[in-house]
Amino acid sequence: MKVDGVPYRSIWLADDGESVDVIDQTRLPFEFEIRNLRTLDDACVAIRDMVVRGAPLIGATAAYGLWLAMRDDASDAALTEARDALLATRPTAVNLRWALDRMQSVVATLVPAERAAAALDEAGAIANEDVATNQAIGRNGLELIREIAAQKPAGESVNILTHCNAGWLATVDWGTATAPIYLAHDAGIPVHVWVDETRPRNQGGLTAWELGHHGVPHTYIVDNVGGHLMQRGQVDLCLVGSDRTTRRGDVCNKIGTYLKALAAHDNGVPFYVCLPSSTIDWSAREGIGEVPIEQRADEEVSSLAGRSEAGNTRIRLTPDATPTANIAFDVTPARLVSGLVTERAVVAASEEALGATFTELAGSKSVE
Amino acid sequence: MKVDGVPYRSIWLADDGESVDVIDQTRLPFEFEIRNLRTLDDACVAIRDMVVRGAPLIGATAAYGLWLAMRDDASDAALTEARDALLATRPTAVNLRWALDRMQSVVATLVPAERAAAALDEAGAIANEDVATNQAIGRNGLELIREIAAQKPAGESVNILTHCNAGWLATVDWGTATAPIYLAHDAGIPVHVWVDETRPRNQGGLTAWELGHHGVPHTYIVDNVGGHLMQRGQVDLCLVGSDRTTRRGDVCNKIGTYLKALAAHDNGVPFYVCLPSSTIDWSAREGIGEVPIEQRADEEVSSLAGRSEAGNTRIRLTPDATPTANIAFDVTPARLVSGLVTERAVVAASEEALGATFTELAGSKSVE
Repeated sequence: MKVDGVPYRSIWLADDGESVDVIDQTRLPFEFEIRNLRTLDDACVAIRDMVVRGAPLIGATAAYGLWLAMRDDASDAALTEARDALLATRPTAVNLRWALDRMQSVVATLVPAERAAAALDEAGAIANEDVATNQAIGRNGLELIREIAAQKPAGESVNILTHCNAGWLATVDWGTATAPIYLAHDAGIPVHVWVDETRPRNQGGLTAWELGHHGVPHTYIVDNVGGHLMQRGQVDLCLVGSDRTTRRGDVCNKIGTYLKALAAHDNGVPFYVCLPSSTIDWSAREGIGEVPIEQRADEEVSSLAGRSEAGNTRIRLTPDATPTANIAFDVTPARLVSGLVTERAVVAASEEALGATFTELAGSKSVE
Repeated sequence: MKVDGVPYRSIWLADDGESVDVIDQTRLPFEFEIRNLRTLDDACVAIRDMVVRGAPLIGATAAYGLWLAMRDDASDAALTEARDALLATRPTAVNLRWALDRMQSVVATLVPAERAAAALDEAGAIANEDVATNQAIGRNGLELIREIAAQKPAGESVNILTHCNAGWLATVDWGTATAPIYLAHDAGIPVHVWVDETRPRNQGGLTAWELGHHGVPHTYIVDNVGGHLMQRGQVDLCLVGSDRTTRRGDVCNKIGTYLKALAAHDNGVPFYVCLPSSTIDWSAREGIGEVPIEQRADEEVSSLAGRSEAGNTRIRLTPDATPTANIAFDVTPARLVSGLVTERAVVAASEEALGATFTELAGSKSVE
């Protein structure tokens, strides 16, 4: 999407043709800086230190990282070593393993001399497919926005609430929850986005940065506010992403999503989850019982980074002796989900509907 | 309650008998400092700069402030001037006006020579009554905790979630939502408190400080977490305060309270609101339509203060161009409230039950 009027992706082949450029997300939302990755080690550091983040972007970065490794040394040993090094950067990211498996299956069958070129092609394909998938999610979600806009007085904005950053920065481009929003905005439908801050890591700052640079009207709010807005009729639609969705449509997403889904349900506000089918876990049915929930470091709760007069500064928020808990995700039961916006269609959050839309996937990993 | 083993109130007559001591809440939760108020101006500054906060404590401070004024000059002109100065410090605080009206009605009928002594007595009475009211709320709420404890295996903690700071720091002592917790803890019932951070002003830090110093086990969590905990059976009871409650039991409280009430309802967790009957607004019935909601400064959302290596530091959280909205309260409809813990009894959140318990108040300001 656009940054100061110029179209960007979150990762791309650098002009020299020999390296990869990424947006340094550790500097956002205050500074926009491009980081150049020239080696396997550069790619590993970028993933580990969260210069890049978001499952799809991590996968694409790992794919390009394998290419960078093959350019230096395309031997079998180097391939194994590169894969292991990249896998170790963020052990819980599902797309990381998926992307590396796909790269390996292409590269390993070739003679070393052909590996680098094939790896570059495949990494590019992974990135392009992510963009196409998100665009398809966007087109399907756009219809939801269009329908709401048609029922409002001309020129009145469709108010959309989103949680966390399921934006283009978390993918290669477009994002998942944001793809329908960007398409609507670009199509001239007036939209306004309520951006949840999303404590503890405040990914709402990234969403606000994205939307601001692309010119989409938005308002940043603390996570406590959404219910009040829905009570007052100030939210027409909720659009969120998903880290993992079960075969019956329970949605595991950033902590706090469940509270917004409850408020949407209580106020008759449509609550849609935007996700590529690759994040559906066909082996799980009951989200609350079957999806493991990551607990993260206390420091993310007890302290927070931002910009002070002295530059980037981390402040402590709680007394030293205060115990904290940092639970990263929660599960929104399917009964609270109006629908799942996938790359194929908007699908009801039910085992039947998901199975009918993704027959070939649903059958392959049945829990029964 | 206790600070490092020593019992404190949030405001008290200083040892010299000529001034008032308060805990400087702008230094909390990182530093515990007593501030001595010797003059009317000291009292005004303390309220205005939020050295003291919380409606009951603001009222008590204003009462003592009027005494300090009378000690200097007990003329009619000085009385009017003092009242006006104190009223102007925090124009929206209901208790401020209530306490000053009460002080004035006592003092104005006396000759100047008797005013200071009478003002001191009345300020002390206001403070003591607040303590007694909160203790009564505590005794009534204690029974709820006791019943839950009786149904758990011996020694297992009763897990209580609270939002914002309805603690002793917001009152003269005991607090409202915390009074049952302190009484339970002091009675040897094992309790553990989930402390909501309560963005944007992070009053959870004050609650954590209070509980920690009194020795009550607790865990500080971001506002997004409570729903997840309730889904997993990790919350036995929610206890929150109320800024204003309508005659049918709609509860206006710190923004985000409604989301926790929804989660409690969805998971069968009892959700009780602790409040003195003085905060019931008998002239309002429908909370969402009739209670005006304060919007506060953007800076409270876009920046946050805490402790860095350089001392107290305020950091910016959002990009400079990001619009924010700061809505301070929301309304929890009576249907989501298990009961109101008042100084008289635990009362159902309904017009009938409230009217029956507070007959003399309910009749006087009927909306009909």
